Amino acid sequence: MISKNQLKQLRALSQKKQRKLQNLFLVQGEKNVLELLDSNLVIEQLFATQIFCEKHASRLTDLNIITCEEEELAKASTLVSNNAAIAIVKTPKQGESNSQGISIVLDGVADPGNLGTIIRVADWYGINELILSPDCADPYNPKVISATMGSFTRVNIIQTELTDYFSKQTRPVYGAYLGGESIHSTQFESDLILVMGSESHGIREHIASAISKKITIPAFGQAESLNVAMASGIILDNIKRCQG
Amino acid sequence: MISKNQLKQLRALSQKKQRKLQNLFLVQGEKNVLELLDSNLVIEQLFATQIFCEKHASRLTDLNIITCEEEELAKASTLVSNNAAIAIVKTPKQGESNSQGISIVLDGVADPGNLGTIIRVADWYGINELILSPDCADPYNPKVISATMGSFTRVNIIQTELTDYFSKQTRPVYGAYLGGESIHSTQFESDLILVMGSESHGIREHIASAISKKITIPAFGQAESLNVAMASGIILDNIKRCQG
Repeated sequence: MISKNQLKQLRALSQKKQRKLQNLFLVQGEKNVLELLDSNLVIEQLFATQIFCEKHASRLTDLNIITCEEEELAKASTLVSNNAAIAIVKTPKQGESNSQGISIVLDGVADPGNLGTIIRVADWYGINELILSPDCADPYNPKVISATMGSFTRVNIIQTELTDYFSKQTRPVYGAYLGGESIHSTQFESDLILVMGSESHGIREHIASAISKKITIPAFGQAESLNVAMASGIILDNIKRCQG
Repeated sequence: MISKNQLKQLRALSQKKQRKLQNLFLVQGEKNVLELLDSNLVIEQLFATQIFCEKHASRLTDLNIITCEEEELAKASTLVSNNAAIAIVKTPKQGESNSQGISIVLDGVADPGNLGTIIRVADWYGINELILSPDCADPYNPKVISATMGSFTRVNIIQTELTDYFSKQTRPVYGAYLGGESIHSTQFESDLILVMGSESHGIREHIASAISKKITIPAFGQAESLNVAMASGIILDNIKRCQG
């Protein structure tokens, strides 16, 4: 059973302020919790149905588990549907940023769904680092975690001032703009930084000087723009194709 | 001012049943309404703020317009933020399906956000036809229209039994599967049909026999799958690159 105090804590962790204070975040739903179990992240507490516990018994040793009814989980969950499990997880320390390979930088991407989708597609293409400007969505927002479909366990996320970040980097920096070079003809290096701006303001002026090459997804129709997550995925596909 | 009856109708049109009955649908928000004004779709009634009406006066002649306050619009809108306009629009008749060019077929894509995003990326790549199985999201769902960012005016949508549809088609049919040929090495024709299944069940058995070639987005990391809208965009980019 989920106690009143536990329910209160679960609710509290849907707020960024409380996540920062308690240094904890939520992982919800079967797929995300299973990926969590396979990761090095530290689970503080797991709320799960009897069915979930029996199905995955061998993976649940040494865990602080509270079994509960589906309805309790549904009530406690911030997701539309969750009939399996919710974990309270320790927020990992931010690591050092990479100086080689491919890193993605997001400038002001505030929508949690977009951020989660970008983490998922980054993982698909084997990119393990994402740098976020301070005004991006909180990567530990439950909506972000949910949209990653487990990929939050494999992509390192560093939220920092982008000007500081770029001052320490020597890799070529590609920025997604309207009106740059077509990604269909760009020869991407194997070490690079890809910068994506938000849909509303693009890549902002204060980091524009860090961009060494402007690139564009060629349009064949009349849509004015693409969603930033979609654009990120299409550009990553073009980058990896050059290295395939 | 929006009258009680008008508010009732706006609310009714958020339901599929009422949209079918009245043969009307809603277009909400500045970007979508402006694209609507540039289209051939028939606007039955437009609710808009004074500011919107003044800003776009030259485009609003011969329209049945009701000016209202921002708060009224916000209250009437099914969208999170809408401070500009809502239009009630006649649902266009389903056209005949194309027999050449590129068509996209969606099998059981029930999420309105995904469908809207696919319409938008189809428009970006100049694809003007989308075929939906009967259990796909309703293309006139307000969430679909909203996610298209105006592209709903340029992509013809036909919702029909897919087995009927395929029986009349002679173009090669590419289906997105896990474990098909890599899209990075596929030579796509300029006339083709692309079939995308839903994230949960993929392309279903009853249409599998219509697929002439199985294709796959190559994975470089460990994510198990991609969102169907993301996958559609990446495949379209690869198709159009072959024809560029």
